[in-house]
Amino acid sequence: MAAAEEASKFSEEANAYPMTGGDGPNSYAKNSTLQRGAGDAAKELLNEAIAEKLDIDILSSSNTFHIADLGCSVGPNTFFAVENIIEAVKFKFQNQGLNSQIPEFQVFFNDHTQNDFNMLFRSLSQNRQYYAAGVPGSFYGRLFPDASIHFFHSSYALQWLSRVPKEVVDKNSPAWNKGRIHYSNSTDEVVRAYEAQHAEDMECFLNARAQETADGGVTVLLIPGRPNGTPHSHPVGNVSFQLIGSCLMDMARKGVVSEEKVDAFNIPVYAMSPQELEAAVEGNGRFSLEKMETLPHVSTHGTVSVTQLVVSHLRAALEGRITQQFGEEIVDELFELYLKKLDEQPSILASGTAIIFLVVLKRKAN
Amino acid sequence: MAAAEEASKFSEEANAYPMTGGDGPNSYAKNSTLQRGAGDAAKELLNEAIAEKLDIDILSSSNTFHIADLGCSVGPNTFFAVENIIEAVKFKFQNQGLNSQIPEFQVFFNDHTQNDFNMLFRSLSQNRQYYAAGVPGSFYGRLFPDASIHFFHSSYALQWLSRVPKEVVDKNSPAWNKGRIHYSNSTDEVVRAYEAQHAEDMECFLNARAQETADGGVTVLLIPGRPNGTPHSHPVGNVSFQLIGSCLMDMARKGVVSEEKVDAFNIPVYAMSPQELEAAVEGNGRFSLEKMETLPHVSTHGTVSVTQLVVSHLRAALEGRITQQFGEEIVDELFELYLKKLDEQPSILASGTAIIFLVVLKRKAN
Repeated sequence: MAAAEEASKFSEEANAYPMTGGDGPNSYAKNSTLQRGAGDAAKELLNEAIAEKLDIDILSSSNTFHIADLGCSVGPNTFFAVENIIEAVKFKFQNQGLNSQIPEFQVFFNDHTQNDFNMLFRSLSQNRQYYAAGVPGSFYGRLFPDASIHFFHSSYALQWLSRVPKEVVDKNSPAWNKGRIHYSNSTDEVVRAYEAQHAEDMECFLNARAQETADGGVTVLLIPGRPNGTPHSHPVGNVSFQLIGSCLMDMARKGVVSEEKVDAFNIPVYAMSPQELEAAVEGNGRFSLEKMETLPHVSTHGTVSVTQLVVSHLRAALEGRITQQFGEEIVDELFELYLKKLDEQPSILASGTAIIFLVVLKRKAN
Repeated sequence: MAAAEEASKFSEEANAYPMTGGDGPNSYAKNSTLQRGAGDAAKELLNEAIAEKLDIDILSSSNTFHIADLGCSVGPNTFFAVENIIEAVKFKFQNQGLNSQIPEFQVFFNDHTQNDFNMLFRSLSQNRQYYAAGVPGSFYGRLFPDASIHFFHSSYALQWLSRVPKEVVDKNSPAWNKGRIHYSNSTDEVVRAYEAQHAEDMECFLNARAQETADGGVTVLLIPGRPNGTPHSHPVGNVSFQLIGSCLMDMARKGVVSEEKVDAFNIPVYAMSPQELEAAVEGNGRFSLEKMETLPHVSTHGTVSVTQLVVSHLRAALEGRITQQFGEEIVDELFELYLKKLDEQPSILASGTAIIFLVVLKRKAN
């Protein structure tokens, strides 16, 4: 099948380090408060999108509404999002006096093959109102049959590129990213390599989704990125990566890690702007851009310091990759050093610009 | 949703010890040769079933053919079975000159929530010709939306009951199974308790599948059982369980395990006869029984002794349960003792009767 062959092109090699699994203190499951905060803020926009943009006659004969969450990790945020979508769809049917036609729901939870699906499955609620399935694989390739999904959702996932751009780890390339681990504080060549990878990835993502989405199907994306026209060096997430990079270089100078390994290590995360997303959707041509909104600033209320929270999140997101490259034994030291640097200059994160934007796409009829 | 609530009735608690995961020497993945042997023998019958019994116009508008394998474990047998089914369906289309109408395939791999889905997903072929999804949960409850599956397959799974019958672990019941771990060498009361559980389970299984199968959809079941009219004490598998039970009682007498724990331990495996299956299908009323054949005797060619092979299989199937009940530390000793007993009376297994039968069901139109 051409589609499956196409999908297999997207080697997961480069992006196969999932969020830290299990439910230990450094796990993603215990460290996704920031993501959930944005999810809560997005809830109303999501409800609006379903109320206003979803055609109730989207279901053909089957009477099952298919939802896919892309980059689901191990929960619990994916469960909140999915339940929210289902409630909104049901409400829409009820609101139109179509109680008897409320469909069944089947939810596909997607993430990389290396994701901890065992934990995801064990965390599913016994009383859930949907049939659940896990789908392993990169969302930059095909995951589902033609026109089979009515609602795609993806939250905090599209900032991950499909891989580290090849040039930035090639010593003979002008885009070699020596002494850094991210593009955001690097040379123009490195920035261009990341930009090109991002453009290619978005093309693949939208092509695959265009094939998989039923006519009239809706896609809601929640993306951490940067405001239009702001430099890549500003977003808080990028500043964090720069800081982690400088910690690694400190450790290289002390001989704790090899400098060569730092040179070869890059974080494939890209801060998209709303304009870039818009251009990608236009280039693809098969979706209408129904809505694009920047979420209000997320407050991180609670007892934990924001710094500690940022570190926990960063660690949950990066630990797998760092362990793979430098070995488990350096991880604690690295994040202690990082925390120390943050404490010394607490304003470094506050000064960064960052946005989370929500996008609603609708599949044009074929 | 009523269906999901219904499904949640089937607590997985009692049957939540999957085949040994991973790919170590005692894992199911390395110890499923016997099952594959039967699978090979079944291949021709499966092809026949698809050629003769599957209506090519079963697909409605969607043009995706949905296959589910129930009790898939971690592979590789499930992959062989699924690829075989897909080849046969494609061949049927080609054979009728409908090359251009060959559908896409989506395969749902189902097993208990405690199954090692991570390993299953990592074992999926990169070049597979289908979209893959994992579905956790007991197949004695609902797993899929109404009328959504075109082909169900289940091999070596339906001998597992949904749970140990309550009475057999109840000291105050006449069906208390003291000093044994299986019904097959026990009292009439215990046999009746297992029979009743099996009848109830088959009713649930067929009810769920009747709802989930598209009109005209085909179900192929491969079931290890016993010939009609033969006693439960005879099948090779049952003899193995009796022997394991006697080993445990030996160890209880030596004080290695507690006798109370042996009394409370029962293996929820039942050797169905073709007649029992037939009665269940008739009772359900929504499937026609298209074919029922006993597979030819499976030869276990190769370098390993049959005894060793049987032990390995038994261990892969039971290790999780035994560890849960008696602790990891007794497992090696138990299987050494078992092997010793087998060596002392090698004819004990050869004298048993056992069959594997293949059943083809077709969903009647609503």
